[in-house]
Order: sequence, then structure tokens, then C-alpha cells
Amino acid sequence: MPKTYDEFKQLDMRLDMSRGKPAPEQLDLAWALLNEAGSTGFLARDGFDCRNYGHALGLPEAREFGASLLDVPVGQVVAAGNSSLELMYDALAFAMSFGVPAGEPWSRGDVAFLCPVPGYDRHFSICAALGIRMIPVPMTDDGPDMDVVEALVREDASIKGIWCVPLYSNPSGAIYSAEVVHRLASMPTAAADFRLFWDDAYRFHHLTDTRHTTPNVLDACVAAGHPDRALIFASLSKVTIASGAIAFLASSPRNLAWWQQRSAVRTIGPDKLNQLRHVKLLRDRAGVEQLMERHRALLRPKFDAVTAAFRERLTGVPDVSWNEPAGGYFISLYVPAGLAKRTVALAAAAGLVLTPAGAAFPHGDDPHDRHLRIAPTFPSLDEVHVAAQGIALSLLRAIDEATR
Amino acid sequence: MPKTYDEFKQLDMRLDMSRGKPAPEQLDLAWALLNEAGSTGFLARDGFDCRNYGHALGLPEAREFGASLLDVPVGQVVAAGNSSLELMYDALAFAMSFGVPAGEPWSRGDVAFLCPVPGYDRHFSICAALGIRMIPVPMTDDGPDMDVVEALVREDASIKGIWCVPLYSNPSGAIYSAEVVHRLASMPTAAADFRLFWDDAYRFHHLTDTRHTTPNVLDACVAAGHPDRALIFASLSKVTIASGAIAFLASSPRNLAWWQQRSAVRTIGPDKLNQLRHVKLLRDRAGVEQLMERHRALLRPKFDAVTAAFRERLTGVPDVSWNEPAGGYFISLYVPAGLAKRTVALAAAAGLVLTPAGAAFPHGDDPHDRHLRIAPTFPSLDEVHVAAQGIALSLLRAIDEATR
Repeated sequence: MPKTYDEFKQLDMRLDMSRGKPAPEQLDLAWALLNEAGSTGFLARDGFDCRNYGHALGLPEAREFGASLLDVPVGQVVAAGNSSLELMYDALAFAMSFGVPAGEPWSRGDVAFLCPVPGYDRHFSICAALGIRMIPVPMTDDGPDMDVVEALVREDASIKGIWCVPLYSNPSGAIYSAEVVHRLASMPTAAADFRLFWDDAYRFHHLTDTRHTTPNVLDACVAAGHPDRALIFASLSKVTIASGAIAFLASSPRNLAWWQQRSAVRTIGPDKLNQLRHVKLLRDRAGVEQLMERHRALLRPKFDAVTAAFRERLTGVPDVSWNEPAGGYFISLYVPAGLAKRTVALAAAAGLVLTPAGAAFPHGDDPHDRHLRIAPTFPSLDEVHVAAQGIALSLLRAIDEATR
Repeated sequence: MPKTYDEFKQLDMRLDMSRGKPAPEQLDLAWALLNEAGSTGFLARDGFDCRNYGHALGLPEAREFGASLLDVPVGQVVAAGNSSLELMYDALAFAMSFGVPAGEPWSRGDVAFLCPVPGYDRHFSICAALGIRMIPVPMTDDGPDMDVVEALVREDASIKGIWCVPLYSNPSGAIYSAEVVHRLASMPTAAADFRLFWDDAYRFHHLTDTRHTTPNVLDACVAAGHPDRALIFASLSKVTIASGAIAFLASSPRNLAWWQQRSAVRTIGPDKLNQLRHVKLLRDRAGVEQLMERHRALLRPKFDAVTAAFRERLTGVPDVSWNEPAGGYFISLYVPAGLAKRTVALAAAAGLVLTPAGAAFPHGDDPHDRHLRIAPTFPSLDEVHVAAQGIALSLLRAIDEATR
């Protein structure tokens, strides 16, 4: 293990830790099972030929599977292609061009979204591309700061929605509390067509013995008299095959009808053979949970390696902190103001590519240059051990430079 | 075989011929081969793990494959998901919201598309959904009536594009002539950002010994000084698996960069495992052509059954005609004015569901109610024999009713 930044640099690593990608060993878990399922043919349980056109909202058993995973009625779930990001983009693009049910096109006026920060860079990229103004709001360990959120949405009718990653939030690891979910579902909003874009990306991605959950947001919205407020997005990309899984959209019957109408123009439907393979492979929620235990066995040591290195090197260093997430794909490292970019540059100079500093903020702009997103899933455990030391040593060098 | 409409009705068929779907026997052709390819793993030729994220524009060998199929440089092809319709929608939606390279968003003004009729209903649905005005232009056997097209685009800057199915056009079977392609590529347009939406859906779908081709439209556009005019769309949906193949987009380098920029926000990329299976299964253009010979062997008798029945029953009937296509998926049947809808209704009353009359026209409105789209691919050959008689008998009954 390197003991100084210069020793780390001499290792001349060639490692890209910039994205939250699963490791090959994780992909092996589902691959073996998918290959078995591949021999089970192309007929759905009702005899439907999954090779042909049809079922634009997804294979019925894939929708049922999604409904059981998301704990919503099957009629309120779409089983789609290989990317929940596409569903989020399309939902937002449809809202911009056509409006949501009973609303006018969002693009007719100024449109803003609340963006809890730090957050997911791809959410922010969608807003930037669609010309949606982004208003950062602070994250707490329980979700977004609801006093700030409520005050903003009550007054400003241009605020049409908020990005939410309710469980093991990307990248802070926050778990939305029941109170936060209740307040999001029930808060008065100046915009009648306000939407929660609920990206339940890490619903089954536990790193501890506790399978954390968040309250059912559709139920919470119904109970609060806002049945159409939430759009839930999820996928199995980090359960089975990163680029070849199933994505789901769940919402109210009215929003589903809207989605069906809009998406029917665009698509002939998803790859139902892949959906069939997934249903046959995973069977049900228990099947997913079993598989995720095996992911956890691979991932937990990597997260522990990072936090152990940080504890060893960074304990007591002023203005430095990090989270030890109970799930998800990321660790957030907070460094002294003004040193995040420099830390990333020092790591890069030693051959370790980190997520660009600021990526977790709208337009890539971390106003205090304090936040680093660490993505320990893809490299091997040995590499993570070295990389974690390298990150800590790069930060210490940056601090040293700044105080010289 | 039924001899009268009443006999046909007594058969009480339960057959849906409304869409151009491949038959199960066609899907079997690729299925066996895909299953073999399934055992060949997940590694691309350069060792890339196709199960993980990456290659948003498609697996390099899948792009090469597409380039060889479409006869364009590999850097100008995207290998995407399971639907070329999605690529067409997204390209048009991107143009509406953001404009094409160096243009302003189309949605800022009145936007119109030329729609050769009869044409493909899903093209027209996209225009309708996006608020694009549709201007029908007549089809000839050589493609759209270019005198009409040239006169319109020269004067009207709101006309931003035209839908083209250059080979075995849906549903007329027209084959664009070299002159038509040249005129489309070179015609002066009032809109500087005019685009050819070139849906090369039936490029390999021959029904005769002659493998018809149309000139390379990208080359034609470059030669005419309009390098960015054409966007080519194609897919293997009717080559391998209808809902699980590969779609391709090909265009100029500048348009490709535009596509990459816009689509990178939306997607994490296509299912590369499926692309790998396809490349391993089909190998190259010769592999596709071999497979298409086997499709042809299944399809040709069905098309022959329809035209034989029409010849038997409808020869000499005033104002009735049909085409005998050299490729593609459809036969157009022209009936006396005002009788298309009635013919469809009579067939439906006998249990035979045809494509709705008017479907091949913008907004489903055939001004003379004359055109029927016949889709003989999906039913068995025996069913096609009966259905073709049934269509002819339904039409004769409609004529009989009208002249009583």
C-alpha cells in the first residue's frame, strides 16, 4: 500500500472509477442464470409469441413482476426497454412538448425543477438539455430539506417537479424518511401539474443486513389527494445486465393512460424475449432479493475498503467527512472548500480517474468545490484498496499544497 | 374456397390481417440461429464486456455490420435498440425541440412534412403527435410525384421534410427511381434545414429473383451539395426477431454528431448483447441475404395467393386495381371511390380484420375512400388463400350494394 502521494503516483495506476458500473463478477451472477433461461423458449405463459410485435406496455408477466417489485397494481406498471433513464427523459420530454394530463405543455412557460444536491448527474443533464431551470436544494440524511422545498413550490408555479432518489440516494446514500415522503406527497404546490420524478434506482441494493425501505409514494400521493403527482422509475440494470435488463415506469392510472397514448406513437414496444428471460430467471421479488444478497457479498468489501482507508488517513482532518452508505452505489467524500477539483486532478495525475468534481450538482457546478463522488463497484477489491488510499493521499496532498 | 360473400361469412374466420407482422415460421428462421449464437458469450472482439454500460452509439462490430448493410461509412452509422420507429420519432422530436445542426428549433414556427400517399401510418402518427402539418403528395410507381414535390418545397419554408420509403414502399410497393432519388437530393428547398426521412425498411425484402436497389441517398446528397439532407433509418425487425432486433440510423458526420449529442442525454445505450448475437448470427451482408431468401420462400406464395385471388375475382371490375409488389410487406388494393371503408366493414363482419381503410393517409383520411392495405405475411398460407377470396368477395358485395 502506498504511504504518500508520491508513492501512489509511482504505482502508475490505470483505473477509471468515474461511473457507477457493476463489476464483471456481478454481471456473472445473472449471466449464468440468464443462459439457463435462454433455453426456455419464446412463448409467454398464455402462448403469446414474444418474438413478434405487440404488448407495447410490456409482456403481462413482466408487468406483474414489476408490480410485485414496486408494490403497485399491475395495471399501473409499464415494463419497458433496457434503460430507466430513457423513461425519465421521455416522460419529461412529453411533459415539455404536450403537458401532463389536463395540463398545458410545460415548454409554453418558464419551467424549473428542484434538484436536491448532491444528486445524480444524468438527471441534471436531462433538465439542461430540455431547457429546464434547475434549483438546487440541500439534501439531509432523511431526504431533501423539506422546509426549503415546501417554501419554494408553494410560491413558484414555474416549479414543475423535483428529482428524488428515495433510497440510498445517488450519491449521498440518504434514505428518505416517512415524514419526507409524506410531505412531498401532500405539500401544496403553486403548479397544479407538479410531479415527483421518483427514481427508485437502488430499491434492492442493500449493503447491510437491514433491508431499508421507503413508504409507497403512490399510496402517499393518493392519500394526500394528489393521485397523479408521482412517477416512479426503476430498472434491473444493476440487478442482472447493466445494458440489457428491464426498466419500469409506475404511476397513477391517469398518468399510465397518458404514457400509453404518448409512447404508442414512438415505439413498437420493448424486447419481450429479454423480458421473458428475466421473468423466468428471477421469478419474483424473492428471486431478486436472493440475487441481490450475492451482489452485496461482492460489493460490501469494496465499500468497507474505501471507508477503512478514509478512516485510517482522514480521521480528524478538518473539514473532511464522508458517508458510510447502507446501500446504493456511491460514497460521498466532502473535502475542504475549494479542493475537490484539485484532488481529482491529483488522482488523475497518478492514473486514477474519478468522477469529475462538481458532477453531482446542476451544470457540474459545486459552488464550494467540496464534493467528490466515489464509485467503488467496478474495480476489483485489490484495486479498490489501492485506489481508496490513493484518493485519501491525493486529498492530503491537495490540503498540503493549499496550506503551504 | 368460398364462392360468395355469404359463404365467406359462414366460415366465421377469426383472423387479424391488420398489421404487417412476420409469421411464426419466419421468426423460426432466425430463432434457431440466435440460440446457437447465444452460446458464444458476452465478449466483443476487442474483449469489451457487452453486459456492461458503454458504447452508446452501438457496439463497434454492430455499427460495422450496419455500415455494410447500408453501404455507408461506419462512422456514420448508429446501431441502436429494437425499433427504427423510435429513431425516427426521436430524430423528429429532437428537430422540433432543438433544431437540426445550425438550425433553430422547428417548433418555433409552422412545420409541415410532405407525405407521399398512400404511405406508412406510423410515420403520419408521429407527425400528428408532434403537431407537424402533413401535406399529401401523390405516389407513382417510381416514387413521389417529383413535379409536385419540387414545386412545394421551393416555395414553402415551413416544409421541413418528406417521408420516404425508397424500396418496396409501404404500402404501394413503389421503387424509387434513380431520377427521383437524384431530384430529392438536389432540389432547391426554401427551408435550409430540409430533411429526407429515409425509411429503408425493406432494403432486403425481395419477393422476386431481382434484388432491386435504390441509389445511395447519402452519396446523392453529398454530390448535390446537400450533405446533411438525408437521415437513413433501417432495422432487422423483419429479418430476425420483430421486437428484438437492431435498428440503425445513418447520416452525415454532422448529423451523427448532432444525434450523439442529443441522444447521449437520453440513453445509456442499446442492448449490446443482442447486437453481439446478431453480428455472430448474421455475420455480414451475405448472411442477411441468405436469410432473406428463406423469408422470401415463405412469403412469395402468400403474395401470389392474394394476387391470384384478385385476378380470379376482380379482373375487369371497373375502378378496381392492385399492385403486385416485387418486395416489401404489403399489397395495395384500389376499389371504386367510397367503398374502401364498406369493404373493410364487410370483411370484419365475416371475422376478417383488415387494416382500417384510410390508414395509409394522413389522419387516416383517404379523400376518395379508395385504398386498402393488404398485409398477407402473418397468416398461414391456407388462411391467406381464404382471406384473399374473402377480401375480393367483400369488395364485390360492397360494389353490389352500391349499385343496387
